Parts: sequence; structure tokens; C-alpha cells
Amino acid sequence: MLRTHTCGELSLEHVNQDVILCGWVQRIRDKGGMVWLDLRDRYGLTQLLFEEGKTPPEVLETARSLGREFVISTKGEVIERLSKNDKIATGSIEIRVSELTILNPAKLPPFLIEDETDGGDDIRMKYRYLDLRRNAVRKNLELRHQVARHTRSYLDNLNFIEVETPVLIKSTPEGARDFVVPSRMNPGEFYALPQSPQTFKQLLMVAGFDRYYQIVKCFRDEDLRADRQPEFTQIDCEMSFVTQEDILNTFEGLIRNLFSKVKGIELPEVPRMTYADAMRLYGSDKPDIRFDMKFVELKGADQDLTSGKGFGVFDDAELVVGICAPGCAVYTRKQMDELTDWVKRPQIGAKGLIYVRYNEDGTVKSSVDKFYSEEDLRKWVTTFDAKPGDLILLLSGQGDKARKQLNEVRLEMGSRLGFRNPDDYRVLWVLDFPLLEYGEAENRWFAMHHPFTSPKPEDIPFLATDLGAVRANAYDMVINGVEVGGGSVRIFERDLQQQMFEVLGFTPEEAQNQFGFLMNAFEFGAPPHAGIAFGFDRLCSLFGGVDSIRDFIAFPKNNSGRDVMIDSPSTIEDKQLKELSIAISTIQ
Amino acid sequence: MLRTHTCGELSLEHVNQDVILCGWVQRIRDKGGMVWLDLRDRYGLTQLLFEEGKTPPEVLETARSLGREFVISTKGEVIERLSKNDKIATGSIEIRVSELTILNPAKLPPFLIEDETDGGDDIRMKYRYLDLRRNAVRKNLELRHQVARHTRSYLDNLNFIEVETPVLIKSTPEGARDFVVPSRMNPGEFYALPQSPQTFKQLLMVAGFDRYYQIVKCFRDEDLRADRQPEFTQIDCEMSFVTQEDILNTFEGLIRNLFSKVKGIELPEVPRMTYADAMRLYGSDKPDIRFDMKFVELKGADQDLTSGKGFGVFDDAELVVGICAPGCAVYTRKQMDELTDWVKRPQIGAKGLIYVRYNEDGTVKSSVDKFYSEEDLRKWVTTFDAKPGDLILLLSGQGDKARKQLNEVRLEMGSRLGFRNPDDYRVLWVLDFPLLEYGEAENRWFAMHHPFTSPKPEDIPFLATDLGAVRANAYDMVINGVEVGGGSVRIFERDLQQQMFEVLGFTPEEAQNQFGFLMNAFEFGAPPHAGIAFGFDRLCSLFGGVDSIRDFIAFPKNNSGRDVMIDSPSTIEDKQLKELSIAISTIQ
Repeated sequence: MLRTHTCGELSLEHVNQDVILCGWVQRIRDKGGMVWLDLRDRYGLTQLLFEEGKTPPEVLETARSLGREFVISTKGEVIERLSKNDKIATGSIEIRVSELTILNPAKLPPFLIEDETDGGDDIRMKYRYLDLRRNAVRKNLELRHQVARHTRSYLDNLNFIEVETPVLIKSTPEGARDFVVPSRMNPGEFYALPQSPQTFKQLLMVAGFDRYYQIVKCFRDEDLRADRQPEFTQIDCEMSFVTQEDILNTFEGLIRNLFSKVKGIELPEVPRMTYADAMRLYGSDKPDIRFDMKFVELKGADQDLTSGKGFGVFDDAELVVGICAPGCAVYTRKQMDELTDWVKRPQIGAKGLIYVRYNEDGTVKSSVDKFYSEEDLRKWVTTFDAKPGDLILLLSGQGDKARKQLNEVRLEMGSRLGFRNPDDYRVLWVLDFPLLEYGEAENRWFAMHHPFTSPKPEDIPFLATDLGAVRANAYDMVINGVEVGGGSVRIFERDLQQQMFEVLGFTPEEAQNQFGFLMNAFEFGAPPHAGIAFGFDRLCSLFGGVDSIRDFIAFPKNNSGRDVMIDSPSTIEDKQLKELSIAISTIQ
Repeated sequence: MLRTHTCGELSLEHVNQDVILCGWVQRIRDKGGMVWLDLRDRYGLTQLLFEEGKTPPEVLETARSLGREFVISTKGEVIERLSKNDKIATGSIEIRVSELTILNPAKLPPFLIEDETDGGDDIRMKYRYLDLRRNAVRKNLELRHQVARHTRSYLDNLNFIEVETPVLIKSTPEGARDFVVPSRMNPGEFYALPQSPQTFKQLLMVAGFDRYYQIVKCFRDEDLRADRQPEFTQIDCEMSFVTQEDILNTFEGLIRNLFSKVKGIELPEVPRMTYADAMRLYGSDKPDIRFDMKFVELKGADQDLTSGKGFGVFDDAELVVGICAPGCAVYTRKQMDELTDWVKRPQIGAKGLIYVRYNEDGTVKSSVDKFYSEEDLRKWVTTFDAKPGDLILLLSGQGDKARKQLNEVRLEMGSRLGFRNPDDYRVLWVLDFPLLEYGEAENRWFAMHHPFTSPKPEDIPFLATDLGAVRANAYDMVINGVEVGGGSVRIFERDLQQQMFEVLGFTPEEAQNQFGFLMNAFEFGAPPHAGIAFGFDRLCSLFGGVDSIRDFIAFPKNNSGRDVMIDSPSTIEDKQLKELSIAISTIQ
């Protein structure tokens, strides 16, 4: 080793020892007769001391020639510091340097390599290797390693086997867009990169592997949003001879184990909610349950407390639904106007926002006082179980649309009220998703999860009569309003799988051509099986308390799918194109 | 769970318990009044008992209707077996069945799901999910999981961080052929799949990650031999502030740890050999040192014991080199002829094979008696340090060529003499590889390892004068004659890296265009670093004592790069081609 110790391990017990350290120059303070240098490596910072009269002159001269981020090797004696720094592990000692070697000089970095940097996103991505030197970024990747390590340990202990499934697979038009790879040896043919190892893990169950997992790269050629990457990582799992309940218990165990091991947080049992309840009470299939503010319907399936009073908007609405924001009756007119403008933005698209103030003094005041009597309003207040000082916010319109809009209002109010603390973790299972959803544009039914998800046995008759009513044995895990994982009990019988493909509009030939290998496999003794996959990047970002998954990926791509550091994608040579039997064709 | 126990865990201590088991029907023996069924899962076999008069009639009827590989669930009481089977863990008990449910019937499999199968390669690959049910194949993948697990554990304990590097990277013409991925969002541009994460792991060192590893898929679009796969897995590692010695010690430690943990074998310290010695003494850069039979030169740099006696073949040869095969003086004329034909095959291409028999009775006999006196031959025998009963085998010709041919003869004789036991593991470091090798066809120098390998500091002057003489700080790990890993101390200074690209025939523009990101990174404080990568599939096959890596990959591809199970690669839709701005072009 070029060093005897790292920059993070020396303490008072090493005093008087001669040590060799290597690392990067973090900071130099030259006070005339004394020069202090902070030397940095992955493990910490150690202070080096150069002193006129005591340090060899040529060493002092070299020290004064150093710049930020120079890589040096230094030898010296560990001594006790006069003024200790209790903020760092090595703060009680410093090194009286006797030898100093520049291993590699450094140009001035284009941004500050500090916890708070002056570099913008673009420049930090271009010099990602410098950005990764910052503690904050490196710690994210260390956290990622810990999450992976404890995931493997938990699953290994439960007899899961990690099996690598292929990356060069077959393109299937169902689902998102595939990345494809031209095959040189099979001209005109292509591999696809997997969007998930779904069919392979099911085949492993058919093969009797019983318990499989894999932490695995997956790929989707979709237009990228801030939060998406063309390549991402999943914790992919599958089990045989289990029920949905077994999956929920096993993977609730995984998540609680991770929180305990990685964050030191002991989570309570994970509550469960049906998809139907989630939509009705939160207007979302991934409700943030760190705070209450459940939806209350003034006009809906159960009652109508709004019609016939001359307020056309409510009279015409299918649903009048609201939330009660605690302590917000003090909102000023200006604040209400601002909130109303906020819900009218095209991203949310509400027509307006009706409020009822239940003032601290017990009076009620509403933006629809003109139509509703105090008695009417007090009925509403009672329905909402509002307390004096609360503010009721109401939206109306078509059911699903109004709920979706109110979900946004609820989340916004939750944020404004400080109810969405990233360190407060609330995990939730959402169950009983619909099997199918109707694509208006395509005029056909789509699998809500994927085509291998099994309908609830009691709902199978609806496959012939009412596709929208079929519920699936599918489940999502939601943490703080973010979907971190999802899965389902799978179809394992050929006939049902074939019926599912028919429902999705596949001809028997298409089904056989694309998924024949799986349906054939089901004929040779397929066990009942079920599984789940977690978005690993997302899970890590949640553990890190950060919104963007990009901060938890070593070398992420930007929103155009480019790696600006290596400048990829790029053109390739004509020779390569020829060998692959393809040509560039930008004519659409 | 659909079961209370697996098929591998019941023993006498469970007698009288009611249990539920699930699994596959392995075998049924119907002896009239009694029916026995072997139920199989990943964990083992359990015998089920059905008995006329005791088993409910409808259960017995169902049992008799079962076929091989049916998936069943069964309930019954654990009872002690009359005739125990000590070959299986559950051999002391059986289950007296009271309930039986067919979870999924099975068609007759196209081959026997037994340790010894009747299925050929092609049919087993097409039904890989059935082949994977066989103990032998499943155990290979379980072994693979164990090797991965202990690798991670060893490296985690040494403070290595596993970091995922990108799969969608940039194509570079240096090295093997890339698989490429057209970018839809960047028309006319392509990603490449990584042949290794080489540049990324070096950037992680520049980023201060200090110790990195990754068990990672890599890709090479090469014509496939039996032993190659287009996608393969590496254990990829890199360390900063280390010397070659540190890498050798750290990864010798890894391999010894794996042998200890996975195989229960405590390996001695790993011997080391220079590339020059390996070539001189074994004619190979990956010598199999399970047996001796080192090369001895009768005519070479040091001496000439063959010239001037009228044997033109030796007189004209640059090198006369041989091995001494212990106890083989008894080889008959027929055996010698057969061996001579063997070395003359085009795969080896020797012109002939000269032998000297040192008979048990002390006499010497050679195929070149006509030219060499007994005294000559006795000198040869002494030079070889041969014992009575040994057989000396000699080849001659141009040095490298003769050595390469003799390497084949040595390995063949080693096999024939039973010296190459797959359970006898001999690990070896080969050091000091040449930095460059000359490509006759291309008429230029190539990096023997890769362009990022550092020359030995003392050989740097030769970069200007004698490229063939420059040795690299590069090393391979060889086990039983198979290269399982290799690496090098890396270049970490921009100027030397640039010089290296020049030597390899890059223009400055080409070097900057393809590897500018790395050379730029070297300017911002790159630490000295070194690394290694192990072929994970190969390592697993060695641990399993099997030659083919394919047996250790869950879903391998055949020699045309096809996955015959899912029928991939395949054509894709015109819509996909258009979106990707490419067209099929089979005109060359």
C-alpha cells in the first residue's frame, strides 16, 4: 500500500507514530510561519502541519506550491492538536509532515468540491467524476451499497437464490418501448434489452427454483422526465407455492429490515388499503399517509348535501368532494385566491375551488354563502368533522377527475402545513388493483400491471361480462406517497393466460409468437407463484431523503438520454453499420 | 404458504405430524395394494404412501392418474419408513397421504428430468426451464450464487463499495466488437454495451472511491466458440493508492477465501511466475501447474546438444525443446505413431515428434538413433534429468511456434497420465506480461491487456526504441491452466496515456474523441490505481469442475448467439425501425 492509514482513522491513540497518508488537497491555510493542509480521501479528512524551522524547507516549499485537488503522499508524525475540532473523527490530531510527494497535480476544478458546491447541474454532470468526490454524492452511493447489501442478506437468509437473467432478450410490443440491439450474426434480427426479467423469473419458478431474486438493470426507451432514467435497477423477486399474503409478509419484512439496518428505524406493521379505498379517500393509488386529511364527499354515492340550492356548479357535478385543512381558517382572501389560481393551472385543471371557513369563534364563512344557508354549511362542517379554525376545501365535477385534482390539493396543503417530513416514513400496501384499464386513445383494454397478473378467482366470471370490474391479485408498496414496489400473484395455467391475451387484443398467433415459450412452459408443470419488484434507485433516494433518483446513480443520463461526460450516444463507423446489416434512415 | 414443509426437511423427529407438501411428481411405483410416489422440490425428495384400504379411495384414484412432473399439493401424516433409504435426507420417513390436489397437470416432458438425462443439447436448450429442474443443473446455479455471495462478503469486509456502472455507454473501435443500441432520441447515434466497465471504474478511482467492485454483465459481439457467450459476467475490481503487490495479495485472498468457503479447500500461498518463464517452461501464458513436465531445451539460447550430427531437422531449427513423460518408455510403436499423428493435426501443426525411450533396463532408444550416438542420447537424458522408464518427447522449429506446439503435447500427456484431476486446484499468478503485441495482419502494435495498462517504469524508455521489449505491470490469475482473471496497474497520468494512444496508432483527435473524458479526468487529480477482473462464469465452472461455462448460466445462448427457448433475436416491427431512424440493409 502507498499509505499506512487512511485519512479517516487516526486519533490520539496514534500519537507519536510515523504514518504515511495519501489523498487529495482539500484546503490550505498559510499563516506565514505555519501552513495547515486538509488532506481528504473517502474515509475522512486529516490535518497536515508544516512549520517554518521544523519542517524541512523543501517540503514547506512543495506544500506552498500545492493547489486544490492535487494528489499527494505524505509522511509524518501524529501529534496532538492544540485546538481540537470535534466535528471530524480525526479532529484531535494532526500530522507534523516530514516528507511530501506530489503523486499527480490537478488543474483547478470547474466547481467547488465541497458539500455546498457552486457548480450547476450541467457542469457537474460533465465532470461527474469530480461531483462524485463531494461527500454528499459519495454518501448516496455508499447508502445504495448498504441497501443492496442488506437486501441480499435478508433474502439469502430466506433461501432465495440470486439468478442472473439475460440482458439480450426478445422484443415484445406489449408495454413500454424496448431498446433493441441489432444482431450481426442474424442479419435483420434484433435483441431487446429487458424492461424487467418478468418472463424469465416465471420460467425459473416453472424450473422449480422456488425462491428467486436479482438486483438487476432494466431498460425502457421512454421519453424521460426528471425522475426517469433509460436504465434503472430493480430488486426483482419471485416465490412459488405462496399466496398473496406470503408475499406481503415476506417483503414487508424486507422493507422493515432495511429501515432497521440502514436507517435505524423500527417500523410498525405495514397497514393495507384497497385500491378502491385509496382512490375514494385520497384520489390516488399511492396515498401519502404521513397525514390524514381524507376526502369527504358532500355529494356522491352515499348522500347529497349540495343539490337544489341554486348553485349550478354543484348541481351539475357528479361528485362534490373536499378535504379539511386543520387550522387554515385564518387563510386570507389573498391566500385563497393564490390557492384557487394554483388549482386552475393546466397541470391540475380544476375549474375553481370552493371553501368553507370554520372560524375559531365558531362562525362559518364560505365562498358560496350566496347559495347555502348557515344551516347547510354547518351540516357540511359536521360531515367533515371539522374543528373551529379549520378550512374546508371543495372541488366538484366528474368523479375520477375531481378526486385526482383534490389529491393534488391535499398533497399541496400537506406540504404547506409541514405534514410531509422526509424523515417520517409511512409504508402502505395498496391491494386489489383492477386487472385491466381502458385505453381511450387505443380503444382497447390494457393490463394495469402486466399480462401475467392473475385475476382474483372470484372475479374470473367478469372476464366474460365486465372487464372493468375484474380485480387483480396485485399489490403496490407505497412509501410517503411514492410507489416503491409492486407485484402480483401470477397466472400459471395456460388456458387462463391465453384468455388474458385474448382480452388484451392479441390474436392467438401473436400470443404464441411473442409469449409461446411461457405458455408452453405452463403445460409442463408450472407451480402457483407470485412476485414483486422494487424500484431500487427510487428506494435508495427515499432512504436518502432526496427526491431525485439521479443523485443515487453513479453515472446517470440527462433528460435527452445522454451521458454528457462520455458524450454518448454517438455516431458509429460505417463498417459497424455494414456488419450489422443496418443503415441510418432519418426519413420518416 | 401452500405448504407446511419443503420436500427436503422432514425426518424422524416429525413422525406423527400432519404436514402439507407441494412439488413435482418425480416417480410413481404402483405395486397393486400400495402406491409410492416421490415428490420433488428444490430442497429434496419425499416419499408419499398410498395404501388400499387406508387411503381414501378418491385420493388413491387421483394418485394413480398422476403423471411425471404434475404439480401437486398433498396432506398427510409423517410415518417412519419400514425400509429406509440412507441416500436421501428424508429417507427415514414417508407421508401417509390423506388429501391430494393436482395444482397443475403436466404434459410428458420431452426428456427425462433425472441426473442422467436422455435429452440432447438442442432439446434441453429449447426447454431450458425443464433442464433447470435437473439436480445437476440447479446445483450449478446454486454454486454460482454461493460464489457471488462469498465474493461480495469478502470485498465488503475490505471496505470495497459495489457501484453499478452504466450499460448504455459509448462505442469505441479499440478492442473487440461492440454490441450497439440505436438511440431513438438522438437519431443516427448509438449507445454501445460495455465490454467491461474499465473506464468507469478508473473514473471512480479519480472520484476517490478508493475501493470499487461490481459483479457485472459485459458484452462482446464476437463469433462464438463453445466456450464463449455474447453476454458474460465479471467480478470487476479497482483500488487506489496501491502497488501491484497489494492487488496480488488482496485477490489471492479472495480466491483462497472462495476455495475455503465454497469448496472447503485451504489453498497454499499462490506461486508466481513471469510471463517469460511461463512461455519458456510451458509454452503458454496460462500453464497448468498441476503437474511438472517443464520444457527442457536441447538447442536454444543456452546450449546446443543436437547440431552437427547430420539430422537436418534439428540443424535447421531455432529451438529443439522437449518434455519428459514419466513412466512412458513402455509406449508401443503404435502408441508413438498415434501420438505423432496427433501432433501433426492442423490444430497443432507440428511436422513430427522425436522421442527418446529411457528404458527401465537403462538402455536408451530413440527415433533418431541413426544420427545420434548413445553418448549423445545419454547427454540428453541427463539434461532432462530423466529416470529409467521415462519417455522424452521432442519438437523443433521456430521458437514460439515449437513451444506452443509442445504446450499442447504437454497438456495431452498430462491428461493421459491422469495428472489433470479437476478436483486438484493449482492457482498461479503470471506476471510481467509484455505491454504490446504486434498484429502481423494489421501491421501495427496492439495493447496486450488494454490501452490503460501501465508500462513498468524501468521499461518506459523502450517506448521510444523497442516496443516489443516493454513489459507491463500486468498480471493474470491462472487456475489449472485456465485464465480466470487478469488486470494491471493503470496509467494515471495524462501524458503517458496520450503517449500510449500514439503508440497504438491513434491520432490525437481520435484519442481525444474516444477517450478524452478519461484523459481530461487525469488532469484533475487522478490517484495511482490498479485493478483486476475475474471471469465469473469461468470461475464458477472451475469450482464446479466442469469445462463449459454454459452449464453455469441460467439462460445461455447457443453458438449463433440465439436463445432458442425464447427464439431471440427476432425481427422487430417497422414502426420500431422508423422510430429508431434505422433501416435493414443487407446489401454489403
